[in-house]
Amino acid sequence: MSSSSEPQPLLALVEALRRLPSVGERTARRMAYHLLQHDLKAAQQLGQALTDAVQRLQHCQLCNGFTETPVCATCDHTEREASLLCIVETPADQNSIEATRGYQGLYYVLMGSLAPLEGRGPDELDFDRVLERATNGVVQEVILATNFTAEGETTAHYLGEALRVKGIKVTRLARGVPAGSEIEYVDAGTVAWALLERKPT
Amino acid sequence: MSSSSEPQPLLALVEALRRLPSVGERTARRMAYHLLQHDLKAAQQLGQALTDAVQRLQHCQLCNGFTETPVCATCDHTEREASLLCIVETPADQNSIEATRGYQGLYYVLMGSLAPLEGRGPDELDFDRVLERATNGVVQEVILATNFTAEGETTAHYLGEALRVKGIKVTRLARGVPAGSEIEYVDAGTVAWALLERKPT
Repeated sequence: MSSSSEPQPLLALVEALRRLPSVGERTARRMAYHLLQHDLKAAQQLGQALTDAVQRLQHCQLCNGFTETPVCATCDHTEREASLLCIVETPADQNSIEATRGYQGLYYVLMGSLAPLEGRGPDELDFDRVLERATNGVVQEVILATNFTAEGETTAHYLGEALRVKGIKVTRLARGVPAGSEIEYVDAGTVAWALLERKPT
Repeated sequence: MSSSSEPQPLLALVEALRRLPSVGERTARRMAYHLLQHDLKAAQQLGQALTDAVQRLQHCQLCNGFTETPVCATCDHTEREASLLCIVETPADQNSIEATRGYQGLYYVLMGSLAPLEGRGPDELDFDRVLERATNGVVQEVILATNFTAEGETTAHYLGEALRVKGIKVTRLARGVPAGSEIEYVDAGTVAWALLERKPT
């Protein structure tokens, strides 16, 4: 695809865009041409935003989320229930839980899930720090809100065992039929879980 | 999805990434988290590459492609056939034709195709400049190598008419069955074209 006569800054930009997740050579080129031809302002803004983010963002000392200050606004909020700690994989998952407006506890953001084959073990995710955060004497219950995927379930299982050993109450988000869905169209695995975990009304 | 407690540099980065073609809110967030969590070096490189590209790249005065110099290396190459001009939509298309190693003429890069409904008419694509380039007295034949999509065909038709009026020989890339393909699996439209444009052996 590439031609040796192409200018170096263009090649460097394509190469840099390829480092984005799930962006290959073709997509990177399309992005580069789009920015350079049709949206120079967006190119400048993105360049500036990247520099700013790298310089100004750090990990919250308590929840590991992204923040501009040593402790993030959520952890610093005095009215949240410090006895509840919700463990999520990513800031996006935290946002989803915040969007329910039904949770007033605190968070810990793993920034990933266990995937030993891809080199993400308990050490890479710094599980010691998670356990330390959960056993600070204030936390009474840890809610495991990792994804319901193989990796997320493994992470929840591993963390659950380690926390129970330390005497912490551990819960997991409920599995079941999604709100508003028709049972006919729900996958069999979900229906099976909903049956197993049925509740008295 | 977004929470008001998120740090501003993160929100700015997500917003800037959303300006990339076919990147929505979720993908932009995934990209931002990936860069900030797992590949800070890529974030820095991309920021630098964008700044460099915006500052250093310009359009070639002859072919309209991206270049660091007023005239690009291809147009400046003394051994290419100046009597042949191949009109393509994007630099990626030019690369595809260069990759054949079977073309020694010059190029003109439209940087798009006609799409009046999206506001890309002959003026936006600067067709006057294309015609001027093709009628410099040296060009003998213009090869229309726009895509075989509705927009590309429209562009080729429009340019073809305008060039023929000026007495320039105009050709179009051949349509037909792709090399190495089994006719059974080629779409009917392509087979129909291949039949219509069949050649004596």
